[in-house]
Amino acid sequence: MLTLIYLIAITAEAMTGALAAGRRHMDIFGVAVIAFLTALGGGTVRDIVLGRYPIGWTQHPEYVLLVVAGGLAAVLVARYMRHLNRLFLILDALGLVAFTIIGCDVALGMGYHPVIIVMAGMITGIAGGILRDVLCNRVPIVFRRELYASVSLLVAILYLGLNHLAMPHDWNVIASFAFGLALRLVALWREWQLPVFAYRHDHH
Amino acid sequence: MLTLIYLIAITAEAMTGALAAGRRHMDIFGVAVIAFLTALGGGTVRDIVLGRYPIGWTQHPEYVLLVVAGGLAAVLVARYMRHLNRLFLILDALGLVAFTIIGCDVALGMGYHPVIIVMAGMITGIAGGILRDVLCNRVPIVFRRELYASVSLLVAILYLGLNHLAMPHDWNVIASFAFGLALRLVALWREWQLPVFAYRHDHH
Amino acid sequence: MLTLIYLIAITAEAMTGALAAGRRHMDIFGVAVIAFLTALGGGTVRDIVLGRYPIGWTQHPEYVLLVVAGGLAAVLVARYMRHLNRLFLILDALGLVAFTIIGCDVALGMGYHPVIIVMAGMITGIAGGILRDVLCNRVPIVFRRELYASVSLLVAILYLGLNHLAMPHDWNVIASFAFGLALRLVALWREWQLPVFAYRHDHH
Repeated sequence: MLTLIYLIAITAEAMTGALAAGRRHMDIFGVAVIAFLTALGGGTVRDIVLGRYPIGWTQHPEYVLLVVAGGLAAVLVARYMRHLNRLFLILDALGLVAFTIIGCDVALGMGYHPVIIVMAGMITGIAGGILRDVLCNRVPIVFRRELYASVSLLVAILYLGLNHLAMPHDWNVIASFAFGLALRLVALWREWQLPVFAYRHDHH
Repeated sequence: MLTLIYLIAITAEAMTGALAAGRRHMDIFGVAVIAFLTALGGGTVRDIVLGRYPIGWTQHPEYVLLVVAGGLAAVLVARYMRHLNRLFLILDALGLVAFTIIGCDVALGMGYHPVIIVMAGMITGIAGGILRDVLCNRVPIVFRRELYASVSLLVAILYLGLNHLAMPHDWNVIASFAFGLALRLVALWREWQLPVFAYRHDHH
Repeated sequence: MLTLIYLIAITAEAMTGALAAGRRHMDIFGVAVIAFLTALGGGTVRDIVLGRYPIGWTQHPEYVLLVVAGGLAAVLVARYMRHLNRLFLILDALGLVAFTIIGCDVALGMGYHPVIIVMAGMITGIAGGILRDVLCNRVPIVFRRELYASVSLLVAILYLGLNHLAMPHDWNVIASFAFGLALRLVALWREWQLPVFAYRHDHH
């Protein structure tokens, strides 16, 4: 079940990555690279930071082909994607929660400290989008958008807390999804944002 | 032979990296760092992704000194380099093919899946240039230039295919070089480009 | 002693990272991420490059909490920080030297070649600031500021040289700090800079 959601999520992330590449007028190779990094970059950074080798997608070449295909498909259907905007926001929210839970599971299995487990969940959830934005030469949108990274943080804390309370894994996943999806969608709907820190004085 | 080409290639890549740093008015320390990353960054990213430790250049400090020297030399001869533009494009094409083949060899020797071997070749070929452009705060040129990353992709596939057909390594290297160099130089001459994906609607 | 300086330094680096995030109008989550990367990113890159697992901060979750707290505290006291500009420049110089020495020690303990040890010191000293600037979408300031990265380079060479001459570790640390701090502060005071390489001809 989590695997199916994961496959849907990396495909959706790849497609949104492709659109970001298109806004920079990249060629289709650049589109494929950005699609790959957006979808699989978060898990890659997590595995490197946790020292978990071999890295996930190197053992699943079919994931690589899937996200590249998703990115190229996005080029073909780009003109219709604006009508699917809401669908993609929901798939993106699904992906954010799925990535976060999977990241926590990986670090849990390696025996890391709870603070590091929460960070592993967040890295999996948001690092792909950060890599996409750095390669597209813009300030990462996850640092400025409606509650996004914070959803990942809260889902990771909830998931770890329920796990600590010995809730069965399946129920924990369902509860974390319900909470994370609801929070993200309400944040989108009500345009909830974290406080912004605007600093102007140039002290150097 | 491949080692000699590799040494020429990393020096040439370091020199072009130095010019990119000069366009951003960096100091000579920045020039040295960008030269290093352009020349050895691709192999570094490949080794980290494949989990191949120790990383190549940490066992070859002479490579580090060579590329830093190359970058600083470029500062001295910058005014003449425009006349050597064609020479550098040829050396850069040599480097692209050599890096790709070396990257494939590394992943082959570690027993990775063919899809991952091709990716290892491409990462070695293009990640250095991507790091250079990210640190110079511009959209990576490999995503927009005449056939470049695609040359790396096709060379990797050809090299792996001929290897699979049991062609002797030396012949395989020669065939891959002939194909890759010819394709890159014709692409430069005829200004072949991949289709560009220009996406304007801002769906966020 | 070195640990105490290290804790002061990562807190100070986190606070300056937070100000950089504030200049980009990031939300407080972005502030926390940039604070973390500025303070602990250098050690992370060093550990990944040297293949030293587990990575430092994953075994010290209290460091993660400290730098995040430092970053958020900077938001609260930002309006007073301009009056503390000199203090922060001194703390930043302390951090640069402390990071460099710690990085050299790590690579020394792993038996790397002297050239790689010097690079490990510099990576620890400056990579955090480079990550901060890349995520804030600007050309890394360490490539253009008054002697900064070069202070790290010279401290690393001095430290390694005195170590080679069998100077006791404590004396070596004191000598390296005295040299590094003095050099950095004089460079700030006299606005010493490395020569800048300005290259205008666009040869592509």
